[in-house]
Amino acid sequence: MRMRTKSWVEDYLNEHPKYLITDPTVNKGKWREILNYPKLNLEIGCGKGDYFLSMAEKYPEEAWIALEKEKNCVGVALRKAEEKQLNNILLLFVDAANLLEYFEKDEVSSIYLNFSDPWPKKRTTKRRLTSDSFIDQYLCVLEDTGKLYFKTDNTKLFEYSLVSMDEKWKLEEVWLDFDSEANNDAVTEYERRFKSENVPIKRAIFSKRKR
Amino acid sequence: MRMRTKSWVEDYLNEHPKYLITDPTVNKGKWREILNYPKLNLEIGCGKGDYFLSMAEKYPEEAWIALEKEKNCVGVALRKAEEKQLNNILLLFVDAANLLEYFEKDEVSSIYLNFSDPWPKKRTTKRRLTSDSFIDQYLCVLEDTGKLYFKTDNTKLFEYSLVSMDEKWKLEEVWLDFDSEANNDAVTEYERRFKSENVPIKRAIFSKRKR
Repeated sequence: MRMRTKSWVEDYLNEHPKYLITDPTVNKGKWREILNYPKLNLEIGCGKGDYFLSMAEKYPEEAWIALEKEKNCVGVALRKAEEKQLNNILLLFVDAANLLEYFEKDEVSSIYLNFSDPWPKKRTTKRRLTSDSFIDQYLCVLEDTGKLYFKTDNTKLFEYSLVSMDEKWKLEEVWLDFDSEANNDAVTEYERRFKSENVPIKRAIFSKRKR
Repeated sequence: MRMRTKSWVEDYLNEHPKYLITDPTVNKGKWREILNYPKLNLEIGCGKGDYFLSMAEKYPEEAWIALEKEKNCVGVALRKAEEKQLNNILLLFVDAANLLEYFEKDEVSSIYLNFSDPWPKKRTTKRRLTSDSFIDQYLCVLEDTGKLYFKTDNTKLFEYSLVSMDEKWKLEEVWLDFDSEANNDAVTEYERRFKSENVPIKRAIFSKRKR
């Protein structure tokens, strides 16, 4: 279901350019320079922004860039970013399907996928953020020593992803009932809700598979 | 905890040689010939034998060999085998740690690991049936197109195994809540108990990773 754009969002995005990037192509290859931190973390599909903003506070010595394509989510995430006024974040209002247009080869240190849309129907498989066309782009923009962190409440998406990632990504660690707090990973409201409903959080860490 | 040998077992094993092999080294490379079926399935650690005996009934056109090293289990499994009087089974009373002594390279069509002992302590990692020294032997005895089927109730063992298998084995399919009946896989009493306690069964199918 597509949401109607909330009435305040359009104006808010126009009036708050500090953290918001709507044309990231011009910064391709220059993100570390722009943010000026040695480590560049990238969250794909940040939704309302709680994860990357919380991680940016937890790890202030690293840069945190988040991508989101849904305008209302970007509006909410941007409002939170403006409240926090951190120096190590940027929010890109773009579609991750064109990731190679925004990031240079090996430019990213870590990639995060959190509670991505499961797109459960077979005909929408290609929209999953762990389907082939996406993961091949991650492989390109991620540096060779980089890691990809994936967590989800959705069993079917997790099963699918373990298999889809298998050929080109090495499974470093996996959890079928991940405790984010105990592992010093940010916990969003969304995740807290699943925990309270006893839905276990599934998590995997991948690196590039050596050939 | 090591069980004392039940009093009836020793005699029973001696008196029922039909399905029981205590020195499988002499048959190495000849199992298909001996059993005379084109497909040779191997269960490692069959416990009381319910799985392989049930599968041998379900798939009577294939050979089913089971390995078990615990004498009481072998006794119980053998008694069940004698009751069923199938033509496509053999029970090997041996330790899977020496698998290469019993099977020739590429001799086995499929390998099954069901509810293996999780050996939860770190110092006993090497005893897990999905630890390196075991999986390297499976790699050798399994034919190149063969599959390894692994199911367990134990979350930690499953997480460990997904990672330990990752380098040399391709993950073909994975289930975090496997329904054996719906997938035409045998269900043991042991598995039924976990199901009734709402413990999800985890299952993975692996093939040899192409290099």
